[in-house]
Amino acid sequence: MLIPIEVSARHIHLSQKDLELLFGTGHQLTIKQTLSQTGEFAAQETIELIGPQNSLSARIVGPTRPHTQVELSYSDCHLLGISAPLRLSGDLAHSASLNLVGPAGQLTLESGVIISKRHLHIDTASALTNHLHNGQIVQTKITGERGGILDQVVVRVSDTFTLALHLDTDEANALGIDSHNHQAELLV
Amino acid sequence: MLIPIEVSARHIHLSQKDLELLFGTGHQLTIKQTLSQTGEFAAQETIELIGPQNSLSARIVGPTRPHTQVELSYSDCHLLGISAPLRLSGDLAHSASLNLVGPAGQLTLESGVIISKRHLHIDTASALTNHLHNGQIVQTKITGERGGILDQVVVRVSDTFTLALHLDTDEANALGIDSHNHQAELLV
Repeated sequence: MLIPIEVSARHIHLSQKDLELLFGTGHQLTIKQTLSQTGEFAAQETIELIGPQNSLSARIVGPTRPHTQVELSYSDCHLLGISAPLRLSGDLAHSASLNLVGPAGQLTLESGVIISKRHLHIDTASALTNHLHNGQIVQTKITGERGGILDQVVVRVSDTFTLALHLDTDEANALGIDSHNHQAELLV
Repeated sequence: MLIPIEVSARHIHLSQKDLELLFGTGHQLTIKQTLSQTGEFAAQETIELIGPQNSLSARIVGPTRPHTQVELSYSDCHLLGISAPLRLSGDLAHSASLNLVGPAGQLTLESGVIISKRHLHIDTASALTNHLHNGQIVQTKITGERGGILDQVVVRVSDTFTLALHLDTDEANALGIDSHNHQAELLV
């Protein structure tokens, strides 16, 4: 089974409350580009992440969510000067902190900064066909001059998901993922 | 067979001629820290790498060599705004270009910028014992919460080498290599 690879650069999901603190009361995100997962989009808006050592710009991924969440690579953390835990999206307890700056305000995110665990999105019907269940840990094989096998890939199943392996920029760079090498083989 | 992992951050090897262009006539490198491979050391001296989009500081690794060579990660290349080929050390034909700036001068390195292919140093006796030969391609397994198997690891054999798997910072970040997780298992 071949899975399209999608590479996630650092980005932020904002709660409506935090969006308004950063961009002003009543602000609504503007869609720049729709993403493969149903309803998700890269917004026109970006914010600044302020770390102890450096700051970095991060794209907002919409729509807004119940909790603000920043997803970084280890490289980003090193540059910002913070240490963030490796987590699945949404698992934010005792995660890292950053200051966020937008055009209309700023805030301290006390917790919500993570490095995203590599994971695989799959719709419920395809998961059944392929004997996969939500939370299962699988391996994926990537070919090419920097090929290898990534362990610890978490399967995430939902009716609305589109088949995709999500890696961060460190993982993509390390495995030589580019526009010519963007498929992985599922090993169960 | 377990192999210690060493992570190479971006660095530069300079020819004596280029060293003198950048640091002044007759300049000799100062040892900051000796490295595991016999005779190699991280120098006190650093230089600036000037790319089309950004510049980055790079540590010099001594002693001087016949040809100047810059070793970057894909992340570094992306930041600098250049495209460098994935190569073994010393294989510099038609590699990438950068401007180098030191305290006493600057130069354009027309060719010599590479991304280092992951490789494994081993001494001749240990290679014989383990049925490994120079240039052989092997796999290495890394455990942990970001574990996996890296293919395309090139074996480099020499009497003076010390056993070590050399990865760059992208690979180390992607595989979760840190001070607690710094050994790989050889798979032949």
